[in-house]
Amino acid sequence: MTQRSAGMSVSEQARRARDAAGELAVATRTAKDAALHAMADALVARTPEILTANEADLAAGREAGLSAAVLDRLALDAGRVAGIADALRQMAALPDPVGEVVRGSTLPNGLELRQIRVPFGVVGIIYEARPNVTVDAAGICLKSGNAALLRGSSSAAHSNAALVAVLRDAVAGAGLPADAVQLLDATSRDSVKELMRARGLVDVLIPRGGASLIRTVVEESTVPVIETGVGNCHVYVDAAADVAKAVAVTLNAKTQRLSTCNTAESLLVHAAVADAFLPPALAAFAQAGVTVHGDDRVAAFSAAVVPATDEDFATEYLSADISVAVVDSLDAAVAHIRRYGTGHTEAILTDSAAAAREFVARVDAAAVMVNASTRFTDGGEFGFGAEIGISTQKLHARGPMGLPELTSTKYVVTGDGHLRG
Amino acid sequence: MTQRSAGMSVSEQARRARDAAGELAVATRTAKDAALHAMADALVARTPEILTANEADLAAGREAGLSAAVLDRLALDAGRVAGIADALRQMAALPDPVGEVVRGSTLPNGLELRQIRVPFGVVGIIYEARPNVTVDAAGICLKSGNAALLRGSSSAAHSNAALVAVLRDAVAGAGLPADAVQLLDATSRDSVKELMRARGLVDVLIPRGGASLIRTVVEESTVPVIETGVGNCHVYVDAAADVAKAVAVTLNAKTQRLSTCNTAESLLVHAAVADAFLPPALAAFAQAGVTVHGDDRVAAFSAAVVPATDEDFATEYLSADISVAVVDSLDAAVAHIRRYGTGHTEAILTDSAAAAREFVARVDAAAVMVNASTRFTDGGEFGFGAEIGISTQKLHARGPMGLPELTSTKYVVTGDGHLRG
Repeated sequence: MTQRSAGMSVSEQARRARDAAGELAVATRTAKDAALHAMADALVARTPEILTANEADLAAGREAGLSAAVLDRLALDAGRVAGIADALRQMAALPDPVGEVVRGSTLPNGLELRQIRVPFGVVGIIYEARPNVTVDAAGICLKSGNAALLRGSSSAAHSNAALVAVLRDAVAGAGLPADAVQLLDATSRDSVKELMRARGLVDVLIPRGGASLIRTVVEESTVPVIETGVGNCHVYVDAAADVAKAVAVTLNAKTQRLSTCNTAESLLVHAAVADAFLPPALAAFAQAGVTVHGDDRVAAFSAAVVPATDEDFATEYLSADISVAVVDSLDAAVAHIRRYGTGHTEAILTDSAAAAREFVARVDAAAVMVNASTRFTDGGEFGFGAEIGISTQKLHARGPMGLPELTSTKYVVTGDGHLRG
Repeated sequence: MTQRSAGMSVSEQARRARDAAGELAVATRTAKDAALHAMADALVARTPEILTANEADLAAGREAGLSAAVLDRLALDAGRVAGIADALRQMAALPDPVGEVVRGSTLPNGLELRQIRVPFGVVGIIYEARPNVTVDAAGICLKSGNAALLRGSSSAAHSNAALVAVLRDAVAGAGLPADAVQLLDATSRDSVKELMRARGLVDVLIPRGGASLIRTVVEESTVPVIETGVGNCHVYVDAAADVAKAVAVTLNAKTQRLSTCNTAESLLVHAAVADAFLPPALAAFAQAGVTVHGDDRVAAFSAAVVPATDEDFATEYLSADISVAVVDSLDAAVAHIRRYGTGHTEAILTDSAAAAREFVARVDAAAVMVNASTRFTDGGEFGFGAEIGISTQKLHARGPMGLPELTSTKYVVTGDGHLRG
């Protein structure tokens, strides 16, 4: 079941995916869950060949001078493979979104109207380094009845090929079409281009990665896109904030993990609370090794503050840096967020119910946090059980995307020879 | 409040719409409904100036040699204006989708999670002739909290300008921003191009019109698009169909109205029922003045049958024509629909519960009818009260789009200083 993708065009792979999707759409939950368990078992059983392939990627990566952090994200071992397999078993335990009746009624003329969840069909996913995404994406797509076209990065090409070969064997062994999971040629830039132009064959494209990848896909794709990921997330410390809690939440939002899209990148402090909040906050950042890029009013509190440029406020650092500004009102904070925010996660820290209500109503983002860390915007934290990414667009899905977000709907209308008058 | 759109760039209009959208997003239902009533009252009160403008369009249209049918669609009179105003009053009576809690729970750590409906923000609509769409679209957008950028056809430019001037005055008089409703320059092709490139300012684009307009927007827009309208709808008469009901439904689906997207354009007849069904069906079509484009097996039943080409089966006629084929199985019908269908509405006529279940499961379309006319795929028929179009894509909305389909969602997460561990 190893697929020689190098010998097949993307549109041929997409056509095979389309056929597989036709079968997956009518597969029962029982059949899909059995396939997920078979995939998990096969990954564990065939760990040695996966690790051999992974070693080839790591060797190539070391030769190419990839950083230790990137190599670590790329690396697999038996424990990591077992963890990836466990994630598939957990997906099997989740409810099947397909077939859910979203709404239904009997119309005045007796027609029975039902809107039911159906799979998209073929989902294309373009992603970077981590091999676990290959398995996660294949599993989430299969559980939601979709065929997956996976386009990973060339640095993980051997690992991804080994993983997909194992998954395809397992899917076929469980009686579902192997072409439900296909890997596109990661060595060719054309495969991304062809995928973006496969309208009619591919139903939705989900780019996961850096800002430039996402921008390219959004601008060039004729296949509908769900935009994910870029998070220039703000924490706004309101005049009525509890200072001790605000310092703790701000530090958590910035430093609990530096490289995720829900990490806080910018801090706005109401002038009325700046004297009380900024000294302990700046001390906490200094201790945590975070560089503060601040405006003049922030710089007045510490010599360690680096002057912030306009670009700083627009930057998703993904590093131990944060931009900080003092604002004179909640309105000014909202205006700043409207200007620089990316619509991911924005937080207000306040004890004022009125301020919280105003901030929630006026800030336009996938998630708005009140007295909680921005880091909570996450499918796992939200209890979704599985996540294919975090949408920062407004169409279809917004915020963490679980299984229901990988479905469309279909109206089924049942009559008895009904005519329109 | 008349807007000299000719003097303003689309991006300037979009920026004004963005500001207006910020106010609309927090407007109460009471305020929005008052504006809808003010809009309706103003249309009735200022009917004379609307009719004068309409007469200018009609005169230009006659000079340009527009057909009587097109001129009729363009024409307004006091009765039609009153009807358009009534539609706004009916929208006011509909529930406000904004603020609806779609789901909510308390997470294990005590965080309160709510997913609530919020407006998109700025909605761009590109549409053809009928001036009533201008008012309908403005009303639906306002009720759902969105600012509307309307790009109508040049043949209705005077009528649309008069209508929008009246609407803007009424909206402002009711205390909401006039820029919630703006008309783009219909005489310039650039206005469509600019609209399609206004990503970040415009949240969603809805093209309503012919296949070529929709294709252009889908291919060139960087703003997310909701595709509407093209309907190559099939009626499949199954082996187990009730022949008398099948003839009546088929005739209704084709002839109840010829030019709508939910009109049947193609008929598939199971071979086992062809002898019983085709003679009365062909006779009914002949009596109704419908030209039948049939395959050889259909032609055997009547000399009036015109030979069908492959292109016939791919054509959305929107006229008194229908393509007809005999198929040997339900599978063959599904395969034909997969090849030629546009994902709008597909119907099966059968007394077999098994056949109906199979057809519903395997046909991939916005709506699947069982023993009912394709003409029922309609926001009004579905009881939605208002409709902005019928989506034939799978992302976000599929099928008739009412008020909830013009909203996105936002997660609101409330804690008490919650940190991620």
